[in-house]
Amino acid sequence: MFSILLSAVVLTVPALAQQYPDCANGPLAGNAICDTSKSVSERVQGLVSVLTPAEKFNLTGSTSPGVPRLGLYPYTWWNEALHGVAESPGVNFSTEGDFSLATSFPLPITLAAAFDNDLIFNVASTISTEARAFNNFNRSGLDFWTPNINPDTFHIKSYVAALIAGLQGSEEFLKIVATCKHFVAYDMEDWHGNERYGFDAQVTPQDLSEYFMQPFQQCARDSKVSSVMCSYNALNGVPTCADSYILQDILREHWGWEADGHYVTSDCDSIQNIFSPHDYTDTREQAVADALLAGTDLDCGTYYQSHLPGAYAQGLFENSTIDQAITRLYSAQVRLGYFDSADSNPYRALTFDDVNTPQAQALALRAAEEGMTLLKNDGTLPLDLSSSDGSNITVAIMGSWANATDELLGNYAGIPPYTHSPLYALQQLPNVNAIYASFNNYPTTDDFPAGFAAAQVADIIIYASGINTDGESESNDRESISWNGGVVDVLGQISSLGKPTILAQFGTSLDNSAWLANENISAIIWGGYPGQDGGTALINVITGKTAPAGRLPVTVYPGHYVNDVEMTDMGLRPNESTGNPGRTYRWYPTPVFPFGYGLHYTNFTASIGQPELASSSNSSTTSSESPTYDISALMASCNDSSPLDLCPFATIPVTVSNTGSVSSDYVTLGFLTGSYGPQPYPIKTLVAYERLFNVSGGASQTAQLNLTLGSLSRFDESGNQMLYPGDYALMIDTVGEVPLAMWNFTVTGSEGTLDEWPQQPADHGAKYRKAEVEDVRELR
Amino acid sequence: MFSILLSAVVLTVPALAQQYPDCANGPLAGNAICDTSKSVSERVQGLVSVLTPAEKFNLTGSTSPGVPRLGLYPYTWWNEALHGVAESPGVNFSTEGDFSLATSFPLPITLAAAFDNDLIFNVASTISTEARAFNNFNRSGLDFWTPNINPDTFHIKSYVAALIAGLQGSEEFLKIVATCKHFVAYDMEDWHGNERYGFDAQVTPQDLSEYFMQPFQQCARDSKVSSVMCSYNALNGVPTCADSYILQDILREHWGWEADGHYVTSDCDSIQNIFSPHDYTDTREQAVADALLAGTDLDCGTYYQSHLPGAYAQGLFENSTIDQAITRLYSAQVRLGYFDSADSNPYRALTFDDVNTPQAQALALRAAEEGMTLLKNDGTLPLDLSSSDGSNITVAIMGSWANATDELLGNYAGIPPYTHSPLYALQQLPNVNAIYASFNNYPTTDDFPAGFAAAQVADIIIYASGINTDGESESNDRESISWNGGVVDVLGQISSLGKPTILAQFGTSLDNSAWLANENISAIIWGGYPGQDGGTALINVITGKTAPAGRLPVTVYPGHYVNDVEMTDMGLRPNESTGNPGRTYRWYPTPVFPFGYGLHYTNFTASIGQPELASSSNSSTTSSESPTYDISALMASCNDSSPLDLCPFATIPVTVSNTGSVSSDYVTLGFLTGSYGPQPYPIKTLVAYERLFNVSGGASQTAQLNLTLGSLSRFDESGNQMLYPGDYALMIDTVGEVPLAMWNFTVTGSEGTLDEWPQQPADHGAKYRKAEVEDVRELR
Repeated sequence: MFSILLSAVVLTVPALAQQYPDCANGPLAGNAICDTSKSVSERVQGLVSVLTPAEKFNLTGSTSPGVPRLGLYPYTWWNEALHGVAESPGVNFSTEGDFSLATSFPLPITLAAAFDNDLIFNVASTISTEARAFNNFNRSGLDFWTPNINPDTFHIKSYVAALIAGLQGSEEFLKIVATCKHFVAYDMEDWHGNERYGFDAQVTPQDLSEYFMQPFQQCARDSKVSSVMCSYNALNGVPTCADSYILQDILREHWGWEADGHYVTSDCDSIQNIFSPHDYTDTREQAVADALLAGTDLDCGTYYQSHLPGAYAQGLFENSTIDQAITRLYSAQVRLGYFDSADSNPYRALTFDDVNTPQAQALALRAAEEGMTLLKNDGTLPLDLSSSDGSNITVAIMGSWANATDELLGNYAGIPPYTHSPLYALQQLPNVNAIYASFNNYPTTDDFPAGFAAAQVADIIIYASGINTDGESESNDRESISWNGGVVDVLGQISSLGKPTILAQFGTSLDNSAWLANENISAIIWGGYPGQDGGTALINVITGKTAPAGRLPVTVYPGHYVNDVEMTDMGLRPNESTGNPGRTYRWYPTPVFPFGYGLHYTNFTASIGQPELASSSNSSTTSSESPTYDISALMASCNDSSPLDLCPFATIPVTVSNTGSVSSDYVTLGFLTGSYGPQPYPIKTLVAYERLFNVSGGASQTAQLNLTLGSLSRFDESGNQMLYPGDYALMIDTVGEVPLAMWNFTVTGSEGTLDEWPQQPADHGAKYRKAEVEDVRELR
Repeated sequence: MFSILLSAVVLTVPALAQQYPDCANGPLAGNAICDTSKSVSERVQGLVSVLTPAEKFNLTGSTSPGVPRLGLYPYTWWNEALHGVAESPGVNFSTEGDFSLATSFPLPITLAAAFDNDLIFNVASTISTEARAFNNFNRSGLDFWTPNINPDTFHIKSYVAALIAGLQGSEEFLKIVATCKHFVAYDMEDWHGNERYGFDAQVTPQDLSEYFMQPFQQCARDSKVSSVMCSYNALNGVPTCADSYILQDILREHWGWEADGHYVTSDCDSIQNIFSPHDYTDTREQAVADALLAGTDLDCGTYYQSHLPGAYAQGLFENSTIDQAITRLYSAQVRLGYFDSADSNPYRALTFDDVNTPQAQALALRAAEEGMTLLKNDGTLPLDLSSSDGSNITVAIMGSWANATDELLGNYAGIPPYTHSPLYALQQLPNVNAIYASFNNYPTTDDFPAGFAAAQVADIIIYASGINTDGESESNDRESISWNGGVVDVLGQISSLGKPTILAQFGTSLDNSAWLANENISAIIWGGYPGQDGGTALINVITGKTAPAGRLPVTVYPGHYVNDVEMTDMGLRPNESTGNPGRTYRWYPTPVFPFGYGLHYTNFTASIGQPELASSSNSSTTSSESPTYDISALMASCNDSSPLDLCPFATIPVTVSNTGSVSSDYVTLGFLTGSYGPQPYPIKTLVAYERLFNVSGGASQTAQLNLTLGSLSRFDESGNQMLYPGDYALMIDTVGEVPLAMWNFTVTGSEGTLDEWPQQPADHGAKYRKAEVEDVRELR
């Protein structure tokens, strides 16, 4: 009697081996791949030419065995770094000492609230530096599956541009490979039994081009990200990883994303999902062939490794097809310097001294502070927590986030040097007695009496709460966006004590309308997932050490919204026949808080100066209050500009004045509205933003908002990006009932095309036949 | 700078103090409560008479501070023992040595599959013995919040009767207090954003009386359970814990559940939930007053302790109302012997020697074996795993349950002496090489190649899989009842190797229709959550050491069923207007497997002998093949029988013959069908069962099925339990296309009423006004 644990040979791979091939003395030394004088394509052709088909197939999986006979070591392509080097198959934190930790920045939702592109670049650059340091000591790969893009179109495009520049670097070598994901129309993970693995997203060409594709256009066409990840879902009947329309026609051809090292990876087992549960092919072999032929070069999983051999034997693809995938993958590795000597690449010199530096720690705190967003304030904030007579002030801090540590990091986290909770940060203040009362959920009300007793003896109450990754995470779409009954009950009772009561809300959005209406709630600050120093950032904002200037990067919907529209309904525009009330700030008219909302500890006014036009010939009436621009003239000025949507239109100077006394940052948001293009008209569209820093009380600063022809565009029903005649207005800030400033102008002439959208082939999705009721076919 | 952790005085209770009051020398020594010569009510009146109102209010919470001045120690009412003494607030397992473990039996769904009332009694009796032993050493309370009842009406009623007898004992003292929960119509926990805490179940009087109430009628009226737990949901507009219609009119008056020690506890914070999110009262004080007045005596939580004082000050209830609750609670404690000397109560002598006995271990194994249910077999089972030439047989065992340990225990578990996985059990067999391959889900297909390699070298493949408590648990209602795509893919590929492939399915039901249709799947065994020795039970059944005879205790629905009917729709009968296709085996016509399904390693036939009628005057044609019974005669024979539904009708001898060669248990199931009473007619109704043991090949045994007037009854639209004239047929076993035996009879005469159902008051639910959209009222 005995038992064994058996592993297939192909996968007996040390999970974290990231050794560089020895191009000086190893088996590949004489191969062109090691010849730095040759072009990338010549080098990779050298490698491909010596590989057998079986070796090539083995190289297409995320856990790659390499090619031992060639000294090509095992390699783990799957590395994560959403907001810092993160735990993932390719990343190996040590248990102590060097590489036992990495800086953990706020999650994207908090970073995005800063509306500060330089901040994003600096964060991303720090992440890639730490990633390279990990790689140099064989603790990570070089290919990272970040960023995760959830559209807000213009804002995300700007954010992503800064992020990718910071991650990939801009020098001779790729710093790391960044991966824009998940391509495309991937908004639903698990809702009412609809799982992402088999979901067929139905999207109109208009919504697709205007909204879902825009961030990826930025990634691929403009920021030249090295990798793109196709998604689990199907799009209009074709699983995205098997869809040559989006991977070839749009991504590679229309966006010209065909430079060396540009490759597509699948999401984890999304190639398997083509076969099951999408039921898109009859056989597993056809599934892998379809994905490879469509242009998915790497499989997260083992389906390529297991089934490409069979598909090849069946003649489902040719040698050139697998060669193309291997070429793309290894071109990226060449561009990373994977086949070069260590001394030829400056990134190879990075060490653990470059991880968790004082600058990185300060940046993590600053990022959290910049993202803190003030949603309500009756004048209670900022709080003076130093008593005049030197006695102590008693602050009760309670709620599920009061002592949050790991919760600050959210998902896709690594191991941070520390996590500073709100309680910790409060305890660092002199003259403050911090009373902490947990409100655990087990059993729910058993903690209540202790909490009420704490509140009764306190001078000030900070209630830190919200959802965390127990309530929202990958494959766990939210069913509710309302505060849970326990918090409603506790905070209702506590606030009725009539003491200054501050709600510090973390996690993503919840319907705050009841707290807005409750006069006993003095202030609300939203902090999202603020990272390793999030508690410090909160207390710094509460005490006024830092003035809040974040803006909501999302629309806050009322609680009933989850019942108003199904998550499987991808439509953005209001639709009477489905009852869809519209999605995003551009189409949903009655949010609790609009996208871009955020208050300050002071007041600001804004005025718009003389727009500086990209071409003086554009306007026929430049001196009037409502200038007019002709479409043909606008486009003519861009003759040598490609793509047209990036052609400059005008730079608008916006002078912002702090009319109060507290020095504060200010995010200058420029929204365009008007009556032009196809109806319905969106409510407004963000077209430019700039964060101004430390505007002193009584002082002014001027933001320069750069508008392009794309800023003025709309998308027609075919998805073409167009210029239309009509009346336009640029609005500065829309937090109040009226914008802080407006600039009106008129566009005349015939409509012009900025971008002609490639149309879906007529037979797109014809093969799709996912049964309503599961059949037995899958069980062969 | 400092911080403190503050607790309210009322709750500074050692969580696990379960000390008995000192009735010999303590402050209560002279109180009637300590006088064993007095009646229970006299004793409790003695205690109540010396309590202040504040002391009484403090005693109404599940974490009770006791009354220090009276030597009444803190007490934790919340103890769990669903399938063994379980981790819970009142239960304190030691870290090692004595009381570090308790026997962990199969979960109810597996126990129920045994259809063996004696087994249930023995399991329950062992649990209560172990619970008493824990209590004697101050490691648990005496009030246990079990059983959890999910209706299957007759089956559950019989099951519960055996269970409560085993838990509560039948001697002078209550062995432990059992608690039937959750009363009532509590079927939905968290589905599509509908949470149990604020759900208002709409149930017709017919479905309520016929189905949802029946197990509780058994508990309260017939089994005299000591405690009942009201539920989170509202029923027809009234939160159950505030509903005097169900707690007073039905539970206490109609069912006569008013003996000493019968009390109602809330579910945890279901009293808070009356206020929020049910929004049933304007104030918290009104919520606790409504609950107390309706007859909820104990609060799991702190709402009573926190808000009864305010409600009392407002005059919302009188002294007699709180006295009644305290009286009920402490009457139970008196009946438990809580105020008696240790030597007067035999249960006080139980020690850790009575925990985890060899008998208990054997019973846990036997219970798991009896519950194993054979769903498919092409003749592969039983497997002979001893090779004739003495060489080894290679068995590959794989899947998420192959090495299951804690998974075997399901939820509400304690700490078992061991957990024997299927892999472990296989490893105990001589002549077997067990190859284990995990199929983890992270990353999904990364384990596939190793698993396929194992399958290829194996002689026999056992695939052990199914859902576990990650996929189904409290507050996690299932969105899908289909097998997940990963299992479908893996098992499809593995089974195509053409080797004997056995699917061992654990967890609750999944749509197996595809595996039934797949000829490469040799056999399917379902084991539910089989407890500490579940792996052994599985392997014993696979090898034929034990022949399987379990029957499905649930209906197995097709995967699309989750889309056919909303979980919030409580209706049982098919309903064209809502699209509800019907619920339970009585109303849903096309299940994958019907309730009661189960195969054997042999074949059985059955024949029905001469029914023995309770009264010979009942039948006018006793000698014919289709006898006739008159309703008035049937009821007249019950003149001195109350309740009428329990009045015997007939005992049916069913002779079961094993026509094969393998000795096997056999569950004799008697279903009634026919055309009588209001339409629609149910498909069939289980009215009796008896498990026969070890029926040898070629031998016969006779089961006696006892039918009562209740067996013949139907329920009218008002919920009255009626006898109707019509044609009846008793069917024995319905696994095959035709029953194994049938007995037809006719009932004549005018309809008769067995039980007149108390009607809901006209204004029931009038107060309910839960807003569609959340309002701000709750936040006062």
